[in-house]
Amino acid sequence: MLETHIDQTLTAFFAGDRRAAARLMTAVENGGPAAEAVLEALYPKLTGAPRLGVTGPPGVGKSTLVDALARHHRGLDRRVGVVAVDPTSPFTGGAVLGDRVRMNDLATDPGVFIRSMATRGSLGGLARTSKEVVDVLEAFGHDLLIIETVGVGQTEMDIAGTADTTVVVLSPESGDSIQAMKAGLMEAADVLVVNKADRPGADQMVRTLEADLHMRPAADWTPPVIRTVASSGDGLADLTAAVDAHHRYLTGSGDLERRRHARVRVEILAVLRDRLWRRAQRDLTDHVPGWTEKVLAGEATPYTAARAMLAALIDDDPEDDE
Amino acid sequence: MLETHIDQTLTAFFAGDRRAAARLMTAVENGGPAAEAVLEALYPKLTGAPRLGVTGPPGVGKSTLVDALARHHRGLDRRVGVVAVDPTSPFTGGAVLGDRVRMNDLATDPGVFIRSMATRGSLGGLARTSKEVVDVLEAFGHDLLIIETVGVGQTEMDIAGTADTTVVVLSPESGDSIQAMKAGLMEAADVLVVNKADRPGADQMVRTLEADLHMRPAADWTPPVIRTVASSGDGLADLTAAVDAHHRYLTGSGDLERRRHARVRVEILAVLRDRLWRRAQRDLTDHVPGWTEKVLAGEATPYTAARAMLAALIDDDPEDDE
Repeated sequence: MLETHIDQTLTAFFAGDRRAAARLMTAVENGGPAAEAVLEALYPKLTGAPRLGVTGPPGVGKSTLVDALARHHRGLDRRVGVVAVDPTSPFTGGAVLGDRVRMNDLATDPGVFIRSMATRGSLGGLARTSKEVVDVLEAFGHDLLIIETVGVGQTEMDIAGTADTTVVVLSPESGDSIQAMKAGLMEAADVLVVNKADRPGADQMVRTLEADLHMRPAADWTPPVIRTVASSGDGLADLTAAVDAHHRYLTGSGDLERRRHARVRVEILAVLRDRLWRRAQRDLTDHVPGWTEKVLAGEATPYTAARAMLAALIDDDPEDDE
Repeated sequence: MLETHIDQTLTAFFAGDRRAAARLMTAVENGGPAAEAVLEALYPKLTGAPRLGVTGPPGVGKSTLVDALARHHRGLDRRVGVVAVDPTSPFTGGAVLGDRVRMNDLATDPGVFIRSMATRGSLGGLARTSKEVVDVLEAFGHDLLIIETVGVGQTEMDIAGTADTTVVVLSPESGDSIQAMKAGLMEAADVLVVNKADRPGADQMVRTLEADLHMRPAADWTPPVIRTVASSGDGLADLTAAVDAHHRYLTGSGDLERRRHARVRVEILAVLRDRLWRRAQRDLTDHVPGWTEKVLAGEATPYTAARAMLAALIDDDPEDDE
């Protein structure tokens, strides 16, 4: 995106133009100098609105629950931004975008913005980019941000880690509770949801989860186990109350402050890393082919080549950094 | 690993000590200056031995096939190094290490070295690290390197991309052929294997795959479709012949040369990126807390902070790089 386009798009964005918001999210996803320019312009407009992470195994009804949550908050006149991350490998199932089409009433509601981010297994950078897409939604004036992630690997946890409150969703029929525990999912949960709670096995699952929670070391916050039926809206008020309670706990304990501090630190380092690498590429790209030939000819190794190039970039101290 | 330990371990490694090899692989996996020191020391010992990537969806019998391949090559008196990467999410199944235990006869064969690399969804850096673990195996004197990856996302493809020849394994019962095509897996395959070829549906699957291959634009190399029954060893000689034919094709066409050129280039950039970042961290870590406070106080943004820190590091040209 050219600089003049960014300025025009930002002006439209601040005037509430949804298409401008979508364009800025795309610019942020694409990375590079344009992404940085957009994020820097938006930075002063960040409101600190609550960020809710919703995660869990495939098939438990996360999308339906997120839709129901969005409707619930719309009923309270709150504007809701949703980022749905689907890093599902082609072999694990997973909807990849298709799911979101069904939310017709939400799609036409100007108080809701849903952004899907689909990838095909390449998770590198996804955690950071999804956080930045949420920044755009936050600067757009949403009162609640929801980050929905499928599956529960480390990266999904990183994504959930950008949230103030992480809701882990399970369902009775998925039989995933044991796997969830294995995966360390229980430790990541601030609130546990047993969705499809009208189906057989729900009571058993709630009991199992509560028993597991009681075996954990005592802590200031014990995740409540909430039953929901996302398709009918049952339990949504309970879930919202639990999330609000967790947010009050975070504020009161100073945890929210600490999390934001850590987040800013990570952000500074991420921007620094990006800029440093762009700068290195700008200054060193011309030297790479020559060094590649030298390595292939046996006259250098990738290590001596990198050292020489680094010394040329930061010339005040060409010494090794070990 | 301390420098003296590295030297001792390298000496033992070059004398053929398997435990030293395992320690070097761990050092390489852990990254940082020790990893670089190890890789630099090994670099001159790289032999250019063929690298075979074996990938495909879970459940098709990749591990059994890789074991069978290793046995087959042992029968030809070749030393075989295997890196088994299992980036399986806790919810998609996948063995994560357990599988490899069953290879008792191989585990006690000094001509075979099997290294498992398991992760839990965090794929960042895995492609590079697994390539470097293969470097260790190559420098250890193995005649054939096999990189086994579960699933087929972008990162798995990156890993397979470090191979000279990529074997994509499917099985009749997995019903994965259509998904494999969707996932772009067909394009990545140099050789296609229908494993468990004694099961119903194998003929149909081979026909489907061959029909699909014929619909592709004409190319110098058309992937053959090989039937195997890994558990009995059927088809292993055919598979080996196909891999050898592909290697001859690569050499004759100049493709092998081009791939190695590209690989060295990527390697130089990766080392450069690592060193640059380590150097930046060394020089800038002290400044991060102060900038974090300024950002939290609203006196800076992560972007102005990063710019100022970058200017301090590369002081000859503090200008923006956009």
